[in-house]
Amino acid sequence: MVFQPIHEEEQVFVDYAIELVKKAGTLVRTAFDSPESKVDTKSSNTDLVTETDQAVEKLLIEGLSERFKGHRFIGEESVAGGAKIEWTDAPTWIIDPIDGTTNFVHRIPMIAICVGLAIKKQIRAGIVYNPITNELYLAQLGKGAFKNGFPIRASKNQFIAESVLILQLGSIRSPVMQKSFVDSYKTVMFDKQCHGHRSFGSAAINMVMVAQGSCDGYVEYGIHAWDVAAPSIIVTEAGGVVTDPTGSPFDVMSRKVLCAGTAELGRDLSACLTHVDFEPEA
Amino acid sequence: MVFQPIHEEEQVFVDYAIELVKKAGTLVRTAFDSPESKVDTKSSNTDLVTETDQAVEKLLIEGLSERFKGHRFIGEESVAGGAKIEWTDAPTWIIDPIDGTTNFVHRIPMIAICVGLAIKKQIRAGIVYNPITNELYLAQLGKGAFKNGFPIRASKNQFIAESVLILQLGSIRSPVMQKSFVDSYKTVMFDKQCHGHRSFGSAAINMVMVAQGSCDGYVEYGIHAWDVAAPSIIVTEAGGVVTDPTGSPFDVMSRKVLCAGTAELGRDLSACLTHVDFEPEA
Repeated sequence: MVFQPIHEEEQVFVDYAIELVKKAGTLVRTAFDSPESKVDTKSSNTDLVTETDQAVEKLLIEGLSERFKGHRFIGEESVAGGAKIEWTDAPTWIIDPIDGTTNFVHRIPMIAICVGLAIKKQIRAGIVYNPITNELYLAQLGKGAFKNGFPIRASKNQFIAESVLILQLGSIRSPVMQKSFVDSYKTVMFDKQCHGHRSFGSAAINMVMVAQGSCDGYVEYGIHAWDVAAPSIIVTEAGGVVTDPTGSPFDVMSRKVLCAGTAELGRDLSACLTHVDFEPEA
Repeated sequence: MVFQPIHEEEQVFVDYAIELVKKAGTLVRTAFDSPESKVDTKSSNTDLVTETDQAVEKLLIEGLSERFKGHRFIGEESVAGGAKIEWTDAPTWIIDPIDGTTNFVHRIPMIAICVGLAIKKQIRAGIVYNPITNELYLAQLGKGAFKNGFPIRASKNQFIAESVLILQLGSIRSPVMQKSFVDSYKTVMFDKQCHGHRSFGSAAINMVMVAQGSCDGYVEYGIHAWDVAAPSIIVTEAGGVVTDPTGSPFDVMSRKVLCAGTAELGRDLSACLTHVDFEPEA
């Protein structure tokens, strides 16, 4: 596959976004190095937000909207503040200022600034930047996936018994989510005897772990578009698969995701899961 | 507390061990950067070993035994190869050449070379080195805990509901281990609503996460002396607590460990656990 821009300025959009993401990274890094963060909670005791999340989102949205008139934005903190998700054919930036806010608050160095670009509702580019480890992951449709400029490749493993799998239970802990996590965990760890279970606490970090072939598969329910838009194209451009956990085609607005290095592993992993349904967010 | 050597050459021992650990790090880093590892299994499909584990243990044991006559060694791969654990008053090096072998095989950058020094059965020093991220953790009894020379400090959090907790199920997946993990997970995540659950796949990495205040608590059953000897003193010198999961005093040979930033959190965490008993390994 080759890169075929569907907007004449598409490359300009992406290059400018990378510049802004690096600037935002300095802000996150500085805050990470300070002794503590002022933390508020959103929907529950386990759903955290900091001033840094809000400052980074402001920097990115203001920077992009000043430069590119008519672009639209779907940002985690804007939506938390009451903005409606508008999912149109216009160039749309899907932004998570800090994916892994709990990690950020606890100074676990696994966090990511996520910026995805959709045009005509197709994810065209994804930037995932961990400013603590200085790892910048980038993919554009048809151009491949890169970490700090070097190509990355998902694992070619087809077998659950040889896999390290990420199942992550986030801030939504309803009974149905509890049952889904525990039952799926038991199946892959006890019945299928996978090599191991990991959870890193950030959807984007979990997904780039699959993109770079470190972990073989990842499933999460309850995520939002801003958690997965940017990393989803990084996984697919690295040769991996991204689907709905049921195996249906991936829908960035569906609030659930399955990633795997191979289609075979993805299918087998899907069959191990106790599924949860969500209302699509757009 | 101040540093009071109990052997006149104690500091010489530690300084020389650090030199060797850095040399071993180069070996691990080179292997990590190569496309794949030759992997064998030990006790089960989920218990892995590589040539690099064996080469690193050889380098450390040969280097230390040439320099320091009469010292004893408890090393993961030597014991796997049939060596008996001899736990005496002699200066004894407790070595895990690569803690997190599954991570190493899967190229997840969370691995550690662990070297602990015991004299008169007291853990006197611990070195935990991640050669991929170049983080070297060091503690000596009464001297404090350091990462790359900078002091580190465990979290002061006393409350499970404000904690990020690590519960790790490793390669032993017997029914009693399964029940312990699932029941303990449910209690901290569902009943106590902690901020989140993480698992990084290496006891030493999990423990230095507690030592540096990133995670608040960690529990694991089925570990060995070489997994925890070095990091245990790093946690306590960083101001944290290390106990048996039941709350009894820590015994490095007991095959289980609980760490927490504070004694209060450790006590509450202990009360959440479904305990597993092991035969001590010495």
